[in-house]
Amino acid sequence: MGAIRGNAVIGQSGGPTCVINQSLVGVIEEAHKSPIIENLYGALHGVQGIMDENFIELLKENQATLDRVARTPSAGLGSVRKKPTADECNRIFEVFKKYEVRYFFYIGGNDSAETAHIVNELAKEAKYELRTFHIPKTIDNDLLVTDHCPGYGSAAKFVALAFMGDNYDNRSLKGIKINVVMGRHAGYLTAASRIARQDPDDAPHLIYVPERAFSKEQFLNDVQKVYDKHGRCVVAVAEGVEDKDGNPIASTGEVDSHGNVQLSGTGALGDFLAQLVKKNLGDKLRVRADTFGYLQRSFPGCVSEVDAAEARQVGRDAVRFALDKDQDGSVVMKRTGNGADYGIETFLTPLKNLAKHTKSLEDEFISENANDINASFLDYALPLVGNIPELGKFQHYALRKR
Amino acid sequence: MGAIRGNAVIGQSGGPTCVINQSLVGVIEEAHKSPIIENLYGALHGVQGIMDENFIELLKENQATLDRVARTPSAGLGSVRKKPTADECNRIFEVFKKYEVRYFFYIGGNDSAETAHIVNELAKEAKYELRTFHIPKTIDNDLLVTDHCPGYGSAAKFVALAFMGDNYDNRSLKGIKINVVMGRHAGYLTAASRIARQDPDDAPHLIYVPERAFSKEQFLNDVQKVYDKHGRCVVAVAEGVEDKDGNPIASTGEVDSHGNVQLSGTGALGDFLAQLVKKNLGDKLRVRADTFGYLQRSFPGCVSEVDAAEARQVGRDAVRFALDKDQDGSVVMKRTGNGADYGIETFLTPLKNLAKHTKSLEDEFISENANDINASFLDYALPLVGNIPELGKFQHYALRKR
Repeated sequence: MGAIRGNAVIGQSGGPTCVINQSLVGVIEEAHKSPIIENLYGALHGVQGIMDENFIELLKENQATLDRVARTPSAGLGSVRKKPTADECNRIFEVFKKYEVRYFFYIGGNDSAETAHIVNELAKEAKYELRTFHIPKTIDNDLLVTDHCPGYGSAAKFVALAFMGDNYDNRSLKGIKINVVMGRHAGYLTAASRIARQDPDDAPHLIYVPERAFSKEQFLNDVQKVYDKHGRCVVAVAEGVEDKDGNPIASTGEVDSHGNVQLSGTGALGDFLAQLVKKNLGDKLRVRADTFGYLQRSFPGCVSEVDAAEARQVGRDAVRFALDKDQDGSVVMKRTGNGADYGIETFLTPLKNLAKHTKSLEDEFISENANDINASFLDYALPLVGNIPELGKFQHYALRKR
Repeated sequence: MGAIRGNAVIGQSGGPTCVINQSLVGVIEEAHKSPIIENLYGALHGVQGIMDENFIELLKENQATLDRVARTPSAGLGSVRKKPTADECNRIFEVFKKYEVRYFFYIGGNDSAETAHIVNELAKEAKYELRTFHIPKTIDNDLLVTDHCPGYGSAAKFVALAFMGDNYDNRSLKGIKINVVMGRHAGYLTAASRIARQDPDDAPHLIYVPERAFSKEQFLNDVQKVYDKHGRCVVAVAEGVEDKDGNPIASTGEVDSHGNVQLSGTGALGDFLAQLVKKNLGDKLRVRADTFGYLQRSFPGCVSEVDAAEARQVGRDAVRFALDKDQDGSVVMKRTGNGADYGIETFLTPLKNLAKHTKSLEDEFISENANDINASFLDYALPLVGNIPELGKFQHYALRKR
């Protein structure tokens, strides 16, 4: 069956990334080329905009605007944290029929894949031809099937650079430094701190991911050992670490609209751990904590060029898949080579394959004693992060004392 | 009197910056060219390294290392937070005599200028020819005499980019966002957030600097007004803001080695203000706080190219001044043109002119009601920050509802 003439809708959902607009612009550019897609409607704030019929006409935007938007972090259409109910999915489908929508592109995480799947099933039941595509994005890198997620590489680059800089800051003025990295359940972003360790004594000296239970006792022992050895200690810890009973280590008690405990946008965990160290290892110690916060997903100064290009490509390919034949799916990536031969190809996988569930950082990347990331992780992550500046230390020709 | 043959010592002091090593490498490169400077000794961790006779031989480092170190944030020689006592200054002078040191370069803030001044006076009293140069650095931009300080432009660029990104993040997922910026007494760095406001409704919507008393009541009123108007609100607040009686708004109570209350390396102020907003304006509001922390002074991904070049230049010129004649001083900058004609020239000012005191953000830059920065600040700051990425929004062609 050939492509059916009609309108298309695109929306963005969930936590923003630095390259989510690359995917959006990829869709717009490719839709421009097609005589089949008559209009491309941008839904403002995702499914909320669809239900409210708040659309803007994206094919009217000029190329200069598209270029600027593409390199602008965060969702150009506005985002939303909302998983629509069954009724709301019906409403979405009603709007699609009213606006003669035949193509639906939804950029987001696993909840967005599920929404796309539900709406798509409604269309099928009604024998209404709708081609639905989920375009993955997340800095957490926790989606199933795809080798990695657009958005992760740039956030990982931010984290790697932050630790590279902080390594030198902490060498300059020694002490114990705790850096809290985003990641509720998946440790990929925290693991990216490992990239900063280029010499054995470089930061981070300890890395804790949410895939392993966090023990305060082990943490204090680990910090003491590193401090005894190097006279300093830089720690990477995921915001989502929990103790062996599944309790958060520190939290304000606030819950977000999904009922999840608020972890980002507060310095609580970092401050708690800093106080824990001072109380137990000595209150004369210079202990500081930084929580990287929203900068990790929105800082415009360090986008991974690989990540940006891939995000653009999955957007373009979504439209190509849509026009190819009557099919639906998530546009995911397969790695075709690594190291110098790094490359990806995209393919389509059923929407339900990415819906609901997420994945965790692979066991093989987590050190046996759960306080570090193995070097094998670098093979996985370095190609995604792209170019990082080459920093360095003096050769250190010590002068003999007189 | 011509330049005297002998050795030189260089040290770095105080909080690191992204370009403090540019100044260091500037001194090394220029010292290399001189047949008068026989050795250039790098003191590890500033005056502490001098007193302990911990030196490395910097003229033995190769060019590739120097290039890497120059672009590496933080103090390549290690830094120290120490203002030596009179006895310690004597010790420093003794070491200089023992190592036949005739040139002393000290990179740092006003405390470093004072240390340099005291040691220089000791040499004068002893009729020992020592040429002493202070090379300014600070992200706070609070040194007297100089138009601005090396290190500020890069930190200001980080703050500007962070707010540019956060503006889009907050447009995507609306709410109230509080960002805490470094700056105990001077508001220059917090003021740099103003650069991010390119359209009238862009973040930051409110800016609070330490030069004005911070009133919780006004703050809550201000936030409410902005929120009513834009449905969101992004706030820039300096870590050092105090109430009208001079009390910090929130603090852990911890004091640093100078006896100052610890402000950086904790999320206390941001978390306090976020709670204050929720308690007073509604606990259903989405309120988040980020404390930018040490990233502002050490992030390697967004150095201002202007700042880097100027930092290199003051280092080089320090050596040129040293070899020119028997003189001492701080190497400071004068602005020779602005806007497209921006440029600086360096000159020498007596060490005591930068010692002890610091300056505050000029009154003319602070808005009358103390919650914003005037546009005139941009003329001052933009040339120092250099290139910033051009971001953008859709033209927003709204679709008529059916």
